[in-house]
Amino acid sequence: MALDAHRIPEEPYYRPVAGEVALFEAAYAARMPMMLKGPTGCGKTRFIEHMAWRLGRPLVTVACHEDMTASDLVGRFLLDPGGTVWHDGPLTQAVRHGAICYLDEIVEARQDTTVVIHPLTDARRILPLEKRNELVQAHPDFQLVISYNPGYQSVLKDLKESTKQRFAAIEFGYPDAAVEAEIVAHESGVAAGTAALLVRIAASSRNLKGHGLQEGVSTRMLIHAGRLAAQGIALETACRIALVLPITDDADVRDAFSAAVSAAIA
Amino acid sequence: MALDAHRIPEEPYYRPVAGEVALFEAAYAARMPMMLKGPTGCGKTRFIEHMAWRLGRPLVTVACHEDMTASDLVGRFLLDPGGTVWHDGPLTQAVRHGAICYLDEIVEARQDTTVVIHPLTDARRILPLEKRNELVQAHPDFQLVISYNPGYQSVLKDLKESTKQRFAAIEFGYPDAAVEAEIVAHESGVAAGTAALLVRIAASSRNLKGHGLQEGVSTRMLIHAGRLAAQGIALETACRIALVLPITDDADVRDAFSAAVSAAIA
Amino acid sequence: MALDAHRIPEEPYYRPVAGEVALFEAAYAARMPMMLKGPTGCGKTRFIEHMAWRLGRPLVTVACHEDMTASDLVGRFLLDPGGTVWHDGPLTQAVRHGAICYLDEIVEARQDTTVVIHPLTDARRILPLEKRNELVQAHPDFQLVISYNPGYQSVLKDLKESTKQRFAAIEFGYPDAAVEAEIVAHESGVAAGTAALLVRIAASSRNLKGHGLQEGVSTRMLIHAGRLAAQGIALETACRIALVLPITDDADVRDAFSAAVSAAIA
Amino acid sequence: MALDAHRIPEEPYYRPVAGEVALFEAAYAARMPMMLKGPTGCGKTRFIEHMAWRLGRPLVTVACHEDMTASDLVGRFLLDPGGTVWHDGPLTQAVRHGAICYLDEIVEARQDTTVVIHPLTDARRILPLEKRNELVQAHPDFQLVISYNPGYQSVLKDLKESTKQRFAAIEFGYPDAAVEAEIVAHESGVAAGTAALLVRIAASSRNLKGHGLQEGVSTRMLIHAGRLAAQGIALETACRIALVLPITDDADVRDAFSAAVSAAIA
Amino acid sequence: MALDAHRIPEEPYYRPVAGEVALFEAAYAARMPMMLKGPTGCGKTRFIEHMAWRLGRPLVTVACHEDMTASDLVGRFLLDPGGTVWHDGPLTQAVRHGAICYLDEIVEARQDTTVVIHPLTDARRILPLEKRNELVQAHPDFQLVISYNPGYQSVLKDLKESTKQRFAAIEFGYPDAAVEAEIVAHESGVAAGTAALLVRIAASSRNLKGHGLQEGVSTRMLIHAGRLAAQGIALETACRIALVLPITDDADVRDAFSAAVSAAIA
Amino acid sequence: MALDAHRIPEEPYYRPVAGEVALFEAAYAARMPMMLKGPTGCGKTRFIEHMAWRLGRPLVTVACHEDMTASDLVGRFLLDPGGTVWHDGPLTQAVRHGAICYLDEIVEARQDTTVVIHPLTDARRILPLEKRNELVQAHPDFQLVISYNPGYQSVLKDLKESTKQRFAAIEFGYPDAAVEAEIVAHESGVAAGTAALLVRIAASSRNLKGHGLQEGVSTRMLIHAGRLAAQGIALETACRIALVLPITDDADVRDAFSAAVSAAIA
Repeated sequence: MALDAHRIPEEPYYRPVAGEVALFEAAYAARMPMMLKGPTGCGKTRFIEHMAWRLGRPLVTVACHEDMTASDLVGRFLLDPGGTVWHDGPLTQAVRHGAICYLDEIVEARQDTTVVIHPLTDARRILPLEKRNELVQAHPDFQLVISYNPGYQSVLKDLKESTKQRFAAIEFGYPDAAVEAEIVAHESGVAAGTAALLVRIAASSRNLKGHGLQEGVSTRMLIHAGRLAAQGIALETACRIALVLPITDDADVRDAFSAAVSAAIA
Repeated sequence: MALDAHRIPEEPYYRPVAGEVALFEAAYAARMPMMLKGPTGCGKTRFIEHMAWRLGRPLVTVACHEDMTASDLVGRFLLDPGGTVWHDGPLTQAVRHGAICYLDEIVEARQDTTVVIHPLTDARRILPLEKRNELVQAHPDFQLVISYNPGYQSVLKDLKESTKQRFAAIEFGYPDAAVEAEIVAHESGVAAGTAALLVRIAASSRNLKGHGLQEGVSTRMLIHAGRLAAQGIALETACRIALVLPITDDADVRDAFSAAVSAAIA
Repeated sequence: MALDAHRIPEEPYYRPVAGEVALFEAAYAARMPMMLKGPTGCGKTRFIEHMAWRLGRPLVTVACHEDMTASDLVGRFLLDPGGTVWHDGPLTQAVRHGAICYLDEIVEARQDTTVVIHPLTDARRILPLEKRNELVQAHPDFQLVISYNPGYQSVLKDLKESTKQRFAAIEFGYPDAAVEAEIVAHESGVAAGTAALLVRIAASSRNLKGHGLQEGVSTRMLIHAGRLAAQGIALETACRIALVLPITDDADVRDAFSAAVSAAIA
Repeated sequence: MALDAHRIPEEPYYRPVAGEVALFEAAYAARMPMMLKGPTGCGKTRFIEHMAWRLGRPLVTVACHEDMTASDLVGRFLLDPGGTVWHDGPLTQAVRHGAICYLDEIVEARQDTTVVIHPLTDARRILPLEKRNELVQAHPDFQLVISYNPGYQSVLKDLKESTKQRFAAIEFGYPDAAVEAEIVAHESGVAAGTAALLVRIAASSRNLKGHGLQEGVSTRMLIHAGRLAAQGIALETACRIALVLPITDDADVRDAFSAAVSAAIA
Repeated sequence: MALDAHRIPEEPYYRPVAGEVALFEAAYAARMPMMLKGPTGCGKTRFIEHMAWRLGRPLVTVACHEDMTASDLVGRFLLDPGGTVWHDGPLTQAVRHGAICYLDEIVEARQDTTVVIHPLTDARRILPLEKRNELVQAHPDFQLVISYNPGYQSVLKDLKESTKQRFAAIEFGYPDAAVEAEIVAHESGVAAGTAALLVRIAASSRNLKGHGLQEGVSTRMLIHAGRLAAQGIALETACRIALVLPITDDADVRDAFSAAVSAAIA
Repeated sequence: MALDAHRIPEEPYYRPVAGEVALFEAAYAARMPMMLKGPTGCGKTRFIEHMAWRLGRPLVTVACHEDMTASDLVGRFLLDPGGTVWHDGPLTQAVRHGAICYLDEIVEARQDTTVVIHPLTDARRILPLEKRNELVQAHPDFQLVISYNPGYQSVLKDLKESTKQRFAAIEFGYPDAAVEAEIVAHESGVAAGTAALLVRIAASSRNLKGHGLQEGVSTRMLIHAGRLAAQGIALETACRIALVLPITDDADVRDAFSAAVSAAIA
């Protein structure tokens, strides 16, 4: 079938935090357009993969960026020996064949993309392919999901009110310490004690947020450190190259964070 | 016929508020270019769908955006095996075949689009296809309708005076409480009491407008909350994910609004 | 013949105000490049249509906009089965075949367009098609006319001195009350008394210009109001939707203007 | 021959002011790149046409503008049935076949054009066609001439030092009163007395330069007024539409200038 | 094989400074995305070449720049006699065939490129070719490496947090004096004493950093000076043309640095 | 052979000033990337032509400009009857066939061009043709030379440190009076006394630099004046049109400079 490559063959590991799985199931039952809000590296992408697997739907993920135009989502004409031929873009494929379409960081895309999704988010559930003069009625299984990191928005780049109001939202954050350690251990292969230690280090970095750090260490970074440790790298070195160096270029903040890492490990 | 896909097969639900249906019928009888003014999510799109159905005209809707050019409206040459072939854009189709053409948020489009519609809005009622050296005389049934959200305009993005003056305007706002509750109940499937409760919550959010909220909760958002509640989600949770989280990223405003929701439901 | 579609088959209604018809006839006899100066909606387009009909010349009208380039005026190569083929743009057609070419709001176009018209406005009367290496000598009947709204110009967007000096100018304004009422009655179908009333309302709005209104109500808007009244809409309602709502988004100005309308009608 | 259409068949009227004809002949003998400096409408274009006729050389004139790129001057590949084929641009034609190439207002063009002409202005006299990997050695008769209006330059738009230094310059201004009247009479067909009167009016406008007028009335504008008068338009009206209205939008300046015109004619 | 031209045939000279070789080997074993941080000319490129040789992997290096788009990395459709044919870009080739892909100064590229690499840096290890509707699963040997010069970043141009956090980092700086002299001698062919002298000169320039010099003299520049000396140029002259003149246009700084060079050599 | 058109058939006149010829020969022997620094019109282009002739290498000169992209240097696909065919750009030709490639005013080009030349300036000496997936190993005779005018740089337009450090530099200035007179006499054909007089005039203009003149009169301009004098134009007139008028638009500076010219000649 058309979207077989987009089906999730095995259950993606996901550790539920609150009632987000049941909430999403109800939203999908209503085919409500959903927005996943939360900081980078906290598990939004993993969650939508898990839900697609759980609901048995193909998942079409599009990473948005500031050069992405509506044509990149919707499709375009390409030149073939027999003339110009229309090729559906990823959104159109999802709409036609009933996938969940996940637009990651939609706010990065050019505004024409947000306009394209509007008629998919109200009672009409249609996608107008204006260049092709076609109105695609969404497949009954289609659902639109976007992600949104509130910390990133600025005056220049924010979702328009008329877009935001078309979505219901689920909020994500870093999980509490025990759950996060469980995730780090599962994903990196380190022992539970090491994972707990890494989570404590993360907590100290998250306190530095706003005092020199733009964002705290994410769960993803802890998994990086854990995987390097699992390759035999000393834990302090693993923390240096996976946590400290990537997160800041400021010598003072780096020294403060390094000291916190050393103290935690000692 | 050419625009069959753009005919509205069944009566779209629309709850008239004042005399807007009769006004629009008179304007259509004069084929006067019309502007629908009002905030996001208050029912402008539904109104024009209802009127197209009532007048028995196909409706060509174009969601405008800042990368939309005149060519996207008017048409372009595409390369075919036999050379370049002209393809009418959505506006040209509507002009030729007598549809109502609804340009949603025209102010978002590039200025060349506003110039394109000028000769359609005076006694000439023509659409010059300059790239094709063709003057299309509008079909007698053709009417041009645009939407316009006064709250969104800025110095950089506003309709030119010479454009505004070519349209007569009908103004839309949120309906009064009883009517809005009737709409929410009809569209979401919740009971009348729940619908009335949701409308009261909306009223409290609309008071916050200008005090941290850019816009109040729209009728569309109330329907979202109602539909989630109809799926079995607790009303307070439904309000959180459909009203509170989408409308603001500010923690203080969110807390104030959440408190108001809780108080209303308790 | 090439420009038959651009001939004006019937006399367009035009009510002369001063000696502008005779002046234009003399200018055409000298094939002098002309500039029509005046505010939006005061009849410049109708005047040039009338003159083209009176002089028996085809009229090629081009509505300029900020994405319009010289190629849009002059022509371009298109891909055909036999290779690239040149297609004359509207200006080139007018130059070759002896039309009056009317560039509406030329100041909106990109500067390359103003340069293109320079050699057409001096003794040479040639149009260089640089991409085609052709020098088109203007047909003896060709004349170039531009429109220009002094109120719109800014530092960023104004005609260059070296362009302005190539045109003689005729100035347009709103006609005096009796003439304007005659026009409104003729164009909208309302009785003379109603037309006179509408003109008095316009006068009050023109006094608000600079006190909240960017421009006053134009003759075109009065005709709109008249046509709605002729469809049976109450005059006060017709004034609201055709005059008040389109001209301002400011609540105070709207109330002041509405009160003036009510007072005038009462 | 290739540039026959660019030959000047008859002597263009030119009234020499100082020794500019002999100077240009010497410069042409040395094939020195020349710059014609002076305000708009003072006769630079007519001068170069006259010199091209006098020297028996074809004249390739290119009106530069801010969207003009090097490709517009040099040439480009176009798609033909047999693949892409190179088409020489106007500069390349002039270089190959020995014309005088006149780049009018070169400062308007994009900077890449100024770089293209550099190797034509030193001892090499070559034009590199980089896209075609060809070095065109200039024909022995080729000469490069540019025009330059010092009053127009700004910080953003000025010739680079490294470009200016490659040209010798001849300066143009408005001719003295007797000569200018002779020119106006010759070009417009009015009698000598009327021409002298027009020149006196121009003098009064040139005194207003800097006091509300950006530039004074040019010789070209006087010829316009003269030609309208020759069509039977009253001289004061002719001055109004050919001198006063085109030169200013400021009501006070217009009134001052109109008064000066009336006084001169009375 | 596909990437044979990208294999490193002989061991590139690299003088390890700390444990960076072992660290990188562990990171490669985990296929962890890596970031090489450090100033210009300190050996990052040489290091990755050395590691690719040591690990026996082809190395695909892409020098990023501000006009580089995602298509330049990922591939594009090209027109062939049989229609449009897809051509893999360098990143896609590396992903498919198991190379190390080194994106040099990724921060220079347009943001769409950073988004393209995101799904390659988490558990999915996929590269979506959206224009082709293909999901490329990375070859097991594929690794992504980027370079990053912290001194260059500005508010306008910095890696997004959500990108930085996907990489572990190794830091590079100028090596200590003895090691740097060993490198200079090896690469330029000068004697050990001359190399040591050049390194002392570099140290004095690095002290000037921030006092007129934007960056100090790099190891690469010392090698340049050494190679000129090895060609028989006097050492002071070699330092002038390889160190002093390239590093500053400021006469005072140049004199200060020249004096330091003379003093060191004397 | 491929680059025959780029060979210099006869010795270009060049008057050495210091040891620059020997320095460049040593740099070429090491195939070191070179930067020629100095003001406009001082002989950098002539020098590199002389050196290419002396070393017997073809010279590929590219005049850089702000619209020049990497593709203009490296090559591009063009459409031919047999599909898209790759055409080497000038840099690629020089790299493949062993020419000296001279990028004149590289700082004018877009930044992607500077990135393209980086791998040609270190030990790799390769040119990656990313669009073609080809790594071109430089011909052993290839050398890269750039020019750079320190007076022109600004914050917005300067070579990046990481580019500058890849080049050794030779500095150029105006030659001393006797040498400059020798050059002017040789190039323009005037007698030695006249040449010396012109050089004295140049000296006075160079003193005005910073006092109204952006740059002083260059050697090239003196040659222009000399050539006009050799055509029989009076020396003072020749100085006016070749030195005074091109160098300034400021009336005061022009008068001061003219007075200096008259005094020198008198």
